[in-house]
Amino acid sequence: MQHKKYKFSTAATDFYFGGSFSQLKTIIDQKATVLLTDENVFNAHSKKFKGWRTIVIKAGEAYKIQSTVDDIIDQLIDLETDRKTTLVGIGGGVITDIAGYVAAVYMRGLKFGFIPTSLLALVDASVGGKNGIDVGMYKNMVGVIRQPSFILHDISLLKSLPDKEWINGFAEIIKHACIKDAAMFRELEANDLSVYQKKPKLIAALLQRNAQLKAKVVQEDEFETSVRRLLNFGHTLGHAIENQYALMHGHAVAIGMTYACHISAQLSGFKQTDRVVKVLEQYGLPTYMSFDRQLAFDLLKMDKKREKKEMNYVLLEKVGKGVVKSIPLVQLEKIIQALPK
Amino acid sequence: MQHKKYKFSTAATDFYFGGSFSQLKTIIDQKATVLLTDENVFNAHSKKFKGWRTIVIKAGEAYKIQSTVDDIIDQLIDLETDRKTTLVGIGGGVITDIAGYVAAVYMRGLKFGFIPTSLLALVDASVGGKNGIDVGMYKNMVGVIRQPSFILHDISLLKSLPDKEWINGFAEIIKHACIKDAAMFRELEANDLSVYQKKPKLIAALLQRNAQLKAKVVQEDEFETSVRRLLNFGHTLGHAIENQYALMHGHAVAIGMTYACHISAQLSGFKQTDRVVKVLEQYGLPTYMSFDRQLAFDLLKMDKKREKKEMNYVLLEKVGKGVVKSIPLVQLEKIIQALPK
Ligand SMILES: NC(=O)c1ccc[n+]([C@@H]2O[C@H](COP(=O)([O-])OP(=O)(O)OC[C@H]3O[C@@H](n4cnc5c(N)ncnc54)[C@H](O)[C@@H]3O)[C@@H](O)[C@H]2O)c1
Ligand SMILES: NC(=O)c1ccc[n+]([C@@H]2O[C@H](COP(=O)([O-])OP(=O)(O)OC[C@H]3O[C@@H](n4cnc5c(N)ncnc54)[C@H](O)[C@@H]3O)[C@@H](O)[C@H]2O)c1
Ligand SMILES: [Zn+2]
Ligand SMILES: [Zn+2]
Repeated sequence: MQHKKYKFSTAATDFYFGGSFSQLKTIIDQKATVLLTDENVFNAHSKKFKGWRTIVIKAGEAYKIQSTVDDIIDQLIDLETDRKTTLVGIGGGVITDIAGYVAAVYMRGLKFGFIPTSLLALVDASVGGKNGIDVGMYKNMVGVIRQPSFILHDISLLKSLPDKEWINGFAEIIKHACIKDAAMFRELEANDLSVYQKKPKLIAALLQRNAQLKAKVVQEDEFETSVRRLLNFGHTLGHAIENQYALMHGHAVAIGMTYACHISAQLSGFKQTDRVVKVLEQYGLPTYMSFDRQLAFDLLKMDKKREKKEMNYVLLEKVGKGVVKSIPLVQLEKIIQALPK
Repeated sequence: MQHKKYKFSTAATDFYFGGSFSQLKTIIDQKATVLLTDENVFNAHSKKFKGWRTIVIKAGEAYKIQSTVDDIIDQLIDLETDRKTTLVGIGGGVITDIAGYVAAVYMRGLKFGFIPTSLLALVDASVGGKNGIDVGMYKNMVGVIRQPSFILHDISLLKSLPDKEWINGFAEIIKHACIKDAAMFRELEANDLSVYQKKPKLIAALLQRNAQLKAKVVQEDEFETSVRRLLNFGHTLGHAIENQYALMHGHAVAIGMTYACHISAQLSGFKQTDRVVKVLEQYGLPTYMSFDRQLAFDLLKMDKKREKKEMNYVLLEKVGKGVVKSIPLVQLEKIIQALPK
């Protein structure tokens, strides 16, 4: 197990890479800990939870809502949890988001940590301290920014992760490579999904690299005024089509990245769209799609990243180098109308 | 209007003393502001709310709960409130607590401010950043610590405050005098409730003095590891009898202070119980009560301030000088059993 500490503005997070669930006991006091997980993770790994007080919720984004938070709080009260308790979220991004949020508000704040069990949670959701819930159709409308005390990677938990969730997670990994890490991009080009699924050391290293990449970006810009915005690469158009066509998040982001490459070709001289498209396909992700251009633009205008008559858009200059550009809405509308199908 | 700034660990609060509601416009941008108030305050001062987007909730502690928070969030979404909005709570402690809490979690945090309209909110609830809601029978079980951007005092709003709420607020004022401010204690001895109700300048100065006293204590010890604990004077036993006998908070605290004086006489050489009792009576507050000693002790043992076999208790050395003492539970039980009725 390898230990790295990242200091953020108000707190520090201990990362334990290449660890295992059983080492959790060495990080925290079992008696003063409550675990939170979902039914899928619990059923697939029930033995590991023996001896731990565990709250199990239903799986899926549909449960990332206030009524689940209410239930968890009732259970924490029943367990006579006090301020010295640590809450540990063990699951995908839904679990890490809820666990971090509950821990922020229960008794004005408990310590909390994560064992992320999906690729997406390992490389993205567990890192950075944004934790929250959905309200009606609005994603992550309620939440806080607060850093976990620790994040523990146990790659063996991925054995039970469905293939479609692997693919979903690779969208964020490719995103990281595109905006910040050309060497990782070349590694991704040299492999494919089945290679990573077969080689625990290779995937462990890749997940560590991605978690550290995100941790560094967040460290530089915790409250998203500059470089953290790069993490939205593929997400602007992605969000606009995700709900509309009920796409998986990773699929929407992959399509969003494809088109962001095309926009980059026009506005920032990007010349490697083909390489990005090829890597996305290599990892089972979609690229082009015949979505409703006008509707997508209208939704995207309403996105929270809009500012007046211009809009911040994450583009690439080359593979490994993302940039944020402010694009006039009139120009953006024309570009989106003319995107290839 | 007098402006004082208090810096806390993560944020600063601008206090505007001797101000008026109408000056709110000069502090914040009316277009980017939403007010939160309760029906009593809104009905008593409806003219003042003209031109402001206002969310009005039902009055009273019974509504300081998650379902009220859910309603407010739905209304904020309907109002198309974004991250640049400021939420201003205008009301008693229930309103300031809910407003601060909603502002902490909506879109991961809006700016917020208060115009406290009850004595208790002016001298206590609005200051210090603890904001939260009740869960079932558990008071303030869910919440955050986050400081408001500003607090504006408008004493003219007190004209509609019922007498019993004045009395309720004076319990906290007397508490402040007991633990920290002998000169203020003498001022209180020299006056009574009706004097303060008749003299706007005198009450304005008293409220400012109390808000500043609490702000300084919080500044020294925002996360309650030392001096902030003094603010619990009268509250330990107070809380134990408050629910049990359905007392008003101020009444329970007054009784708690009376008995804390007796305990102080035994453990810290305090000799001024009579003066404290006399002042409490002067402001319409109860002092002695024949409550169930054993039950009160059992409840108090379960209080969150308990630590192992001892318990932190706030005592007085003399008027104006509070101290925190750790008392063995066995000893405390005997003392409580023998308290006068
Ligand atoms: N906080 C952030 O910064 C951040 C960043 C990105 C995404 N997110 C959030 O993360 C969520 C998406 O994350 P996700 O895709 O992990 O969602 P998820 O938690 O719903 O997990 C996806 C599915 O995989 C299952 N699963 C997870 N790990 C498993 C395992 N090891 N074995 C078997 N099944 C397993 C889950 O039960 C679920 O059915 C969204 O709510 C999103 O908003 C948050
Ligand atoms: N956050 C903190 O640090 C802190 C500290 C102390 C108390 N509190 C909280 O404060 C609450 C108690 O405060 P409170 O006593 O102000 O309660 P409150 O808000 O319920 O007000 C008491 C009553 O007075 C009414 N009222 C208030 N101002 C009025 C006015 N100007 N004119 C007419 N009616 C008016 C209210 O509508 C209510 O009916 C509790 O929930 C308590 O937990 C919080
Ligand atoms: Zn994403
Ligand atoms: Zn009080």
